[in-house]
Amino acid sequence: MNLELALRMTEAAVRQAVREGVPISVAVLDEGGHLVSFQRMEGAGIAGPGLAQGKAYTAVALRASTAELAPRTAPGGDLHGLPRDGLVCVGGGIPLWADYGEGWRVVGGIGVSGGTTTQDVECAEAAAEVWRTR
Amino acid sequence: MNLELALRMTEAAVRQAVREGVPISVAVLDEGGHLVSFQRMEGAGIAGPGLAQGKAYTAVALRASTAELAPRTAPGGDLHGLPRDGLVCVGGGIPLWADYGEGWRVVGGIGVSGGTTTQDVECAEAAAEVWRTR
Amino acid sequence: MNLELALRMTEAAVRQAVREGVPISVAVLDEGGHLVSFQRMEGAGIAGPGLAQGKAYTAVALRASTAELAPRTAPGGDLHGLPRDGLVCVGGGIPLWADYGEGWRVVGGIGVSGGTTTQDVECAEAAAEVWRTR
Amino acid sequence: MNLELALRMTEAAVRQAVREGVPISVAVLDEGGHLVSFQRMEGAGIAGPGLAQGKAYTAVALRASTAELAPRTAPGGDLHGLPRDGLVCVGGGIPLWADYGEGWRVVGGIGVSGGTTTQDVECAEAAAEVWRTR
Repeated sequence: MNLELALRMTEAAVRQAVREGVPISVAVLDEGGHLVSFQRMEGAGIAGPGLAQGKAYTAVALRASTAELAPRTAPGGDLHGLPRDGLVCVGGGIPLWADYGEGWRVVGGIGVSGGTTTQDVECAEAAAEVWRTR
Repeated sequence: MNLELALRMTEAAVRQAVREGVPISVAVLDEGGHLVSFQRMEGAGIAGPGLAQGKAYTAVALRASTAELAPRTAPGGDLHGLPRDGLVCVGGGIPLWADYGEGWRVVGGIGVSGGTTTQDVECAEAAAEVWRTR
Repeated sequence: MNLELALRMTEAAVRQAVREGVPISVAVLDEGGHLVSFQRMEGAGIAGPGLAQGKAYTAVALRASTAELAPRTAPGGDLHGLPRDGLVCVGGGIPLWADYGEGWRVVGGIGVSGGTTTQDVECAEAAAEVWRTR
Repeated sequence: MNLELALRMTEAAVRQAVREGVPISVAVLDEGGHLVSFQRMEGAGIAGPGLAQGKAYTAVALRASTAELAPRTAPGGDLHGLPRDGLVCVGGGIPLWADYGEGWRVVGGIGVSGGTTTQDVECAEAAAEVWRTR
């Protein structure tokens, strides 16, 4: 992950948010789960910094999109007993994969918060698409 | 939010608590989620400071009453995977809205803890009514 | 400690702050170190909730005024190695003592933040005076 | 504080960092101490997100530049006993003041980390200059 790419991904998420008419927060993390870039749009709430970073962190740490993780945290799900501090298993977090010749691994994550879960996922997907076609 | 108004809201919540015969804790936060006033009635437990502030913070951060958020954090709900540290999605937290010429936004929050959820909600509502008719 | 007395102490601290022309935050804790009341005056900063409570907590926990503790945390002082998370060893925190027939013990604490250290101490002293003459 | 201005400030800090030949992290917070934007340059370490945000938060919360606060936290200084969790009293954090008709108040903060303290301060100053001439 690098800042230039993180900003391009963020731009794509923000553009999608403008299209949906909802102000969002967007976080991009590196493979260590550390913040590379963050932007909170005018009108997006104060929960955004925590939730967007939390979703991105969860995606990096568990190597899965938070939308996929969500149902698995329900009773009966394999992740039901997961501690919830630090992990945000609500849609909007997507891990970013790459194969630099040593096999595929997660090298970063994107997290979006501010709209409905569906909107957050769509904005995160717009950012992830930039990653895939980088 | 200002202290004088926060105290008037707190007074209304406490009055309702006396009517219900239950000792409560009452927190009022500003729009940044920072404490403006807090009161714990004689006999209210030591969980009160954390829970009342947590409910108020959650209402400010997620811009919704914690009573509305509660069912959404149940299995299958869109917020089921929310982190449980810092966010308290149990009834008794209410966001306070205002329009100072730039559109409606959350400018504070009230949080009550100490009684049953129903009682906490009623006490918080009594405080919110002071806000609405300020 | 009870709410009525905590509010009277708070009132005395606020009155002193008005006299000094400085907006402050005032926290009163019980003997368990748990918040009983808190007030942040108009214009007092967002550090107030944490620092006022921190000073009061430190005074209760270490059974000493934070003004006395301050020099003892300097190099060579007996408390130099004290961890600083949670403890605020800056003037403005005062323990409240009482003897209910079982010997003197700390039954609460007051903490003030917002002015200079000298101002904070004076406001806390005004509150402690209410305690002593209760 | 708004995102557009935060990004312009960040750009100025980054430009200064490029001039100094040092990779930095830059955080911009709003008046509630909540993140508005963050950027970590290629090569800047993983301490950056925490330290840049910590400096900016400290500047907002204590309404002073962290460079001014630093000597006051030395032994004998009036802030020597400040807690070290959450507050970062090392140069590179600057509060942003504005008067929107109700008197001057802190409406945000900038924090830079990654270079020497002198470099961090210079980068933060470059950003603050954008604020002053906005």
